[in-house]
Amino acid sequence: MVRIAIDAMGGDHAPSLIVQGAVEAALEWPELQIKLVGDTAQIEKHLGAKKPSNIEIIHADDVIGPDDEPVKAVRRKKSSSMVMAGQLVREGHAEAMLSAGNTGALMTTGLLVVGRMEGMERPALVTMLPTMDDVGCLALDLGANMDAKPEHLLQYAIMGSIYRSKMNGMEKPRVGLLNVGTEAMKGNELTKAAYELMDSAPINFIGNVEARDVLLRNCDVLICDGFAGNIMLKAMEGTAGTLFKAIRDVFSSSLLTKLAAALVLPRMRQLRGKMDYKEHGGAPLLGVNGLVVKCHGSSDVKAVKNAVRQAKLAIESNLISSIAAEISRK
Amino acid sequence: MVRIAIDAMGGDHAPSLIVQGAVEAALEWPELQIKLVGDTAQIEKHLGAKKPSNIEIIHADDVIGPDDEPVKAVRRKKSSSMVMAGQLVREGHAEAMLSAGNTGALMTTGLLVVGRMEGMERPALVTMLPTMDDVGCLALDLGANMDAKPEHLLQYAIMGSIYRSKMNGMEKPRVGLLNVGTEAMKGNELTKAAYELMDSAPINFIGNVEARDVLLRNCDVLICDGFAGNIMLKAMEGTAGTLFKAIRDVFSSSLLTKLAAALVLPRMRQLRGKMDYKEHGGAPLLGVNGLVVKCHGSSDVKAVKNAVRQAKLAIESNLISSIAAEISRK
Repeated sequence: MVRIAIDAMGGDHAPSLIVQGAVEAALEWPELQIKLVGDTAQIEKHLGAKKPSNIEIIHADDVIGPDDEPVKAVRRKKSSSMVMAGQLVREGHAEAMLSAGNTGALMTTGLLVVGRMEGMERPALVTMLPTMDDVGCLALDLGANMDAKPEHLLQYAIMGSIYRSKMNGMEKPRVGLLNVGTEAMKGNELTKAAYELMDSAPINFIGNVEARDVLLRNCDVLICDGFAGNIMLKAMEGTAGTLFKAIRDVFSSSLLTKLAAALVLPRMRQLRGKMDYKEHGGAPLLGVNGLVVKCHGSSDVKAVKNAVRQAKLAIESNLISSIAAEISRK
Repeated sequence: MVRIAIDAMGGDHAPSLIVQGAVEAALEWPELQIKLVGDTAQIEKHLGAKKPSNIEIIHADDVIGPDDEPVKAVRRKKSSSMVMAGQLVREGHAEAMLSAGNTGALMTTGLLVVGRMEGMERPALVTMLPTMDDVGCLALDLGANMDAKPEHLLQYAIMGSIYRSKMNGMEKPRVGLLNVGTEAMKGNELTKAAYELMDSAPINFIGNVEARDVLLRNCDVLICDGFAGNIMLKAMEGTAGTLFKAIRDVFSSSLLTKLAAALVLPRMRQLRGKMDYKEHGGAPLLGVNGLVVKCHGSSDVKAVKNAVRQAKLAIESNLISSIAAEISRK
């Protein structure tokens, strides 16, 4: 059975759109058991009369807010919807939990409540970066952990590689190490040591890759420490955002350029959408004893349903136990 | 007197365009003394009959090529044009040297031949990043040194700050530390320690800055370790390049979109030019006992002349001695 606990109270549109998303998922996949965790009265209000039989409400008194300090909040708010959803996974009452709430608190819930996988040094949040071919590049870590050790990068590589085979059906996902050049001995002490480890790991390691070609999908799994990864992500976002804004200015400068804009608008919008990494669904926290999925704070009905779909696939394909088996083997 | 040694043999268009650029500079600024270092016969051929009186040829037998291993080449090729230009600075026969040759070899020439400034831990290559307002953001380090220490970042900050006041007439250049967020305690061990040092230094430190806003000139001097800086630079270049290519594809998809392209072409070209950091002139290596300027490998007549102008300004404004005074004070 696939049981998914959903934090009904986390996110910009909670509980209304979270509850609606859960309902749509429950109707689409009747074999699922969905546990909506949160304030019963509020959840019932949004469920209305149409509560599907495979949705169960688990009452939670408290909520972790977006501005709560993560570790403190998780330790003190034991009856918050997020921590209780984590408890359900820890105690074996659910295989997965989803939340669109406070990212730091969700990571802490993963580490302290759900619990770190045996042999796992650093669980990591996994993000799908957009690529021009729409396939995406799975990146870890993009900012959850600063100051990584080579062993952490190796574990990221193993987790990312298993994720792409299980979740995207890639037979031999190409794993690349983010670096300042493609030659083997490039980089800082961290990447040089990580290169050695990754080169003898049971993955399809293609060596160092450069940030300039990530959009062209130079690899399927991109490995980096959280500091460098975050710098790269924000440089890409900032450049794309600034350029699109400048292009809008070019187009709005005269009547003729406005005419030009009208001619290319649909395709320019499509291009803009391609670059928006926020549209690329939930981000799993890998390396804990169960599936924990971070949904974007602005998640709507569609996003929640997509995250449930993703969680369902992960559970059915034994993603977590495959990662645990590979990590414990080391 | 301002005496500038130019490596006539380095770069894609050496010696022809380098020599021509030197001639134009010599004619424009008769008060300069230009020493063209390289093969006398070849230099004379390109000078023709029009050698200005303030150009002198210094014969060099050898050349360091683009594929030479930097340290080995500088140690062994004592009579190369690049090493001999460095010798002229070291021995007080020139205030500055310029080269469009092998970057690694030029940095090594700066360190081993010209010599490190007293108290200077890590000389750094200084690059002007493009910004939308065309003023530019001075960044160091973008890849010359991996694995920086907090003290290195502090010295980069001091050098960059002095550079912008002397060279660009900025009274209180805003110095920012590249980080994953703007809050004070963000980042990895390196940036946290560097933040403390920079916060009590005699500079206008504005705190942490993010890669996403560099194009909007969120600071005048951007400080980062060479690894993170290089990742940022290549992410920006790659994103801009990929987007412009995708936009070209959008424009060329039909007759109507081609018409649209024609209407916005000049302004789109201008925007593309803005983003091209290669157009932003020579990059000085700061922290050595004299002025060493790296010109882009593809430097043409205009680029050489611009680099000479830059060197002239640096010498006349006592850039190097100001940096030396501040560094030795610590």
